Amino acid sequence: MERPRIAELLRSSPSETPREVPGWIRTKRDSKNVCFLEINDGSSLQGLQAIIDKSATDLQSTLDRLQTGASVLARGILVASPGTGQSVELACTGLDLLGEAPAETYPLQKKRHSFEFLREIAHLRGRTNTFGAVMRVRNRLSIAVHQFFQEREFLYLNTPIITASDAEGAGALFQVTTLDMENPPRREDGSLDYSQDFFGKPAYLTVSGQLNAEAYATALDRVYTFGPTFRAENSNTTRHLAEFWMIEPEMAFCDLEGNMGLAEDFVRFLLRDILERCPEDMEFFDKRIEPGIAESLRKVAESDFRRMTYTEAIDVLEKSGRSFAYSPHWGIDLQTEHEKFLTEDYAQGPVIVTDYPREIKAFYMKQNPDGRTVRAMDVLVPRLGEIIGGSQREEELTPLEEAIRRCGLETGAYQWYLDLRRFGTVPHAGFGLGFERLVRYVTGMQNIRDVIPFPRAVGSADF
Amino acid sequence: MERPRIAELLRSSPSETPREVPGWIRTKRDSKNVCFLEINDGSSLQGLQAIIDKSATDLQSTLDRLQTGASVLARGILVASPGTGQSVELACTGLDLLGEAPAETYPLQKKRHSFEFLREIAHLRGRTNTFGAVMRVRNRLSIAVHQFFQEREFLYLNTPIITASDAEGAGALFQVTTLDMENPPRREDGSLDYSQDFFGKPAYLTVSGQLNAEAYATALDRVYTFGPTFRAENSNTTRHLAEFWMIEPEMAFCDLEGNMGLAEDFVRFLLRDILERCPEDMEFFDKRIEPGIAESLRKVAESDFRRMTYTEAIDVLEKSGRSFAYSPHWGIDLQTEHEKFLTEDYAQGPVIVTDYPREIKAFYMKQNPDGRTVRAMDVLVPRLGEIIGGSQREEELTPLEEAIRRCGLETGAYQWYLDLRRFGTVPHAGFGLGFERLVRYVTGMQNIRDVIPFPRAVGSADF
Repeated sequence: MERPRIAELLRSSPSETPREVPGWIRTKRDSKNVCFLEINDGSSLQGLQAIIDKSATDLQSTLDRLQTGASVLARGILVASPGTGQSVELACTGLDLLGEAPAETYPLQKKRHSFEFLREIAHLRGRTNTFGAVMRVRNRLSIAVHQFFQEREFLYLNTPIITASDAEGAGALFQVTTLDMENPPRREDGSLDYSQDFFGKPAYLTVSGQLNAEAYATALDRVYTFGPTFRAENSNTTRHLAEFWMIEPEMAFCDLEGNMGLAEDFVRFLLRDILERCPEDMEFFDKRIEPGIAESLRKVAESDFRRMTYTEAIDVLEKSGRSFAYSPHWGIDLQTEHEKFLTEDYAQGPVIVTDYPREIKAFYMKQNPDGRTVRAMDVLVPRLGEIIGGSQREEELTPLEEAIRRCGLETGAYQWYLDLRRFGTVPHAGFGLGFERLVRYVTGMQNIRDVIPFPRAVGSADF
Repeated sequence: MERPRIAELLRSSPSETPREVPGWIRTKRDSKNVCFLEINDGSSLQGLQAIIDKSATDLQSTLDRLQTGASVLARGILVASPGTGQSVELACTGLDLLGEAPAETYPLQKKRHSFEFLREIAHLRGRTNTFGAVMRVRNRLSIAVHQFFQEREFLYLNTPIITASDAEGAGALFQVTTLDMENPPRREDGSLDYSQDFFGKPAYLTVSGQLNAEAYATALDRVYTFGPTFRAENSNTTRHLAEFWMIEPEMAFCDLEGNMGLAEDFVRFLLRDILERCPEDMEFFDKRIEPGIAESLRKVAESDFRRMTYTEAIDVLEKSGRSFAYSPHWGIDLQTEHEKFLTEDYAQGPVIVTDYPREIKAFYMKQNPDGRTVRAMDVLVPRLGEIIGGSQREEELTPLEEAIRRCGLETGAYQWYLDLRRFGTVPHAGFGLGFERLVRYVTGMQNIRDVIPFPRAVGSADF
């Protein structure tokens, strides 16, 4: 693993050190005496240019079989490049063709392909400039997430994927079973005999790790999850996945104020980090995918996030004079058009809206003394709308039990969750950030299916 | 989030700076004039001792309600501690009781509880010394995994959890569905109508991300997964979970030799890291859970891993004179008793066994010219046996197609996987490490259900 990769070679100076460079051919330009290859190994957007002097080498038969997509091992030394766009290139003295990519059958030719087409060959799309850049940015954002929380002494917590309880009573669920679905065992009354299922009862894929994270936050103070969550919603849009990764920090001894501070620091940290650490890929997204995106992210990274209550936000929307598709009034859930107005027009920057009506938020949020609102917060950013949703949690037993009942849920299923309020309860708070939503926001990719290696959506679980 | 946590306070010097320390009461010792509290906030095994001079404060009524497990906010200054075991303690001038933990009902009293009992209250067990230590070690190992691969320029890759293909033909699967299981839609011939299921066909939980990782390794060179995987095996043991996290690196331009080097570096890195970064928790495991474990891990961290072929290993076992429950001969899969002999008795250290019989390994492993063995490797360590399994992959199309057929699998389902060999194929290799197996190995915890926050196993999906 000691060989330098192409990203590093491109930063190197010319030298006589012999190099072996493995990679895939992106382009080949041939003239009578010289052949130019661009070799890419995934370490950067830019490939290494390899120059083959045909008169000095005996590689013609290899070059004849070399096509876009072929894998090679090129040998030579780094020399100063007379061309623009790179300071060094490989003066190539030897070349092994490892694997051909016949032009008649290889689906990724030099021409530009639509993202729809590339989704059909998701097993190959990592070989394109766009998906290489997406995967490098996705990687860096993942690591920045861990770095942010580790520096603040949060413990990374793996909450369960399979769960026997429907955490929030929110969202359609996938059922998980080992019963023979064609011919499942039944009880005498004809109902399914779940005692024979793997877990002895119906089980589902999790929609959120939050309730489990609360159990560990009320033991170890600060935890965060970063794992897959699931929604079986039949929404065939550019913004929904059936399987997506979510980040959910949870903090004891923390109120809504502390929660807002953490969320704001988190968003700014991630944006600063990605602009600094992935400049080449971000320049690509800025030029080729969404012009202006880098500046828009930089602005958010440098902003103080404006804070306003939901009641204030509704007031602003009502007085805006703007005609919305969905008319704003107290009690509605904010729509993307409202969130965009608040961030892009009104505040001209990120906004945190707090204290939403109790009726449109989940049962576990801490109730305000007014009896109408809860200590919820949504972090909104220009271009996107909501990027983070969170709340201070109800830490008192009686109002929490009442909220569970009011939402039509069974308190029986929540006894363990209520125990966290019975024993050594503390003010605590947390939030959730959908990771693919973040990657889409940062890259400007239109369709969320294009920011995860193999997307899962209604009707689609290939590869 | 700026307040220092108890781990940091314990390393501080006495000072007049006023402190506010939130946490949970672990113990309370009361005398006529003084009350000693041990406060823990999850940041370290050790708590902060708080001393309350009853004659100087007006806290008696608060202290009366203070029980093990109660949450508090203690105020005071750090003073030199006359006691042993800590250099500072909190001279407490004020104390808020945030949440009581009535002794009559709180299940976690001072006495020692069995791990079986604690599993029944998994939502509270993070409040014990043992599970606090497990979660801190688990957190640190997770981060060390990312650090190791990031330093080597691997990209973190999230492979899909839901899959329509049974990756290896190995292991019992969980089915994932949105059909009404009581009364599913059927076709005219009475069979289930999967066209109405969420993905339009049967779908399952993944048993491995490897095949998907290969698609991105053959595009971006070096990737690794770290995500949940699933086995629906009906094995109620201390070594199996239905849901567990797995790490799977995959490297292009890499053969078995490079794979072994990476695996060896990886294991040594993780063990060195955890001994260095979590000394207090590791001392706890060494004293209270498995005496001698720290020294055993240190030895492995400093070892060169001995390498031998499977054929050599069988020869050693046959000539050992040892009577095994399962008699060794060429063609068997190595049992734990064999792996322990090889590591503990024969090599007295870690061993990498390579080139296993083709018949006992998966279809995707690269075949050796001998026609009998494949380029597989298992990394074995003392006390445990196999900790890592991997291989060089078959990168040639024809032998891979033959292997798929020989294993009784449908080549049709693997066309996308075969494409990776049709277009720009390269030698590549990788391995898998079960994360909970690692945490169990490092902590000495007997039951694998005790090294994951909320274990899932046959008959068990609570919380």
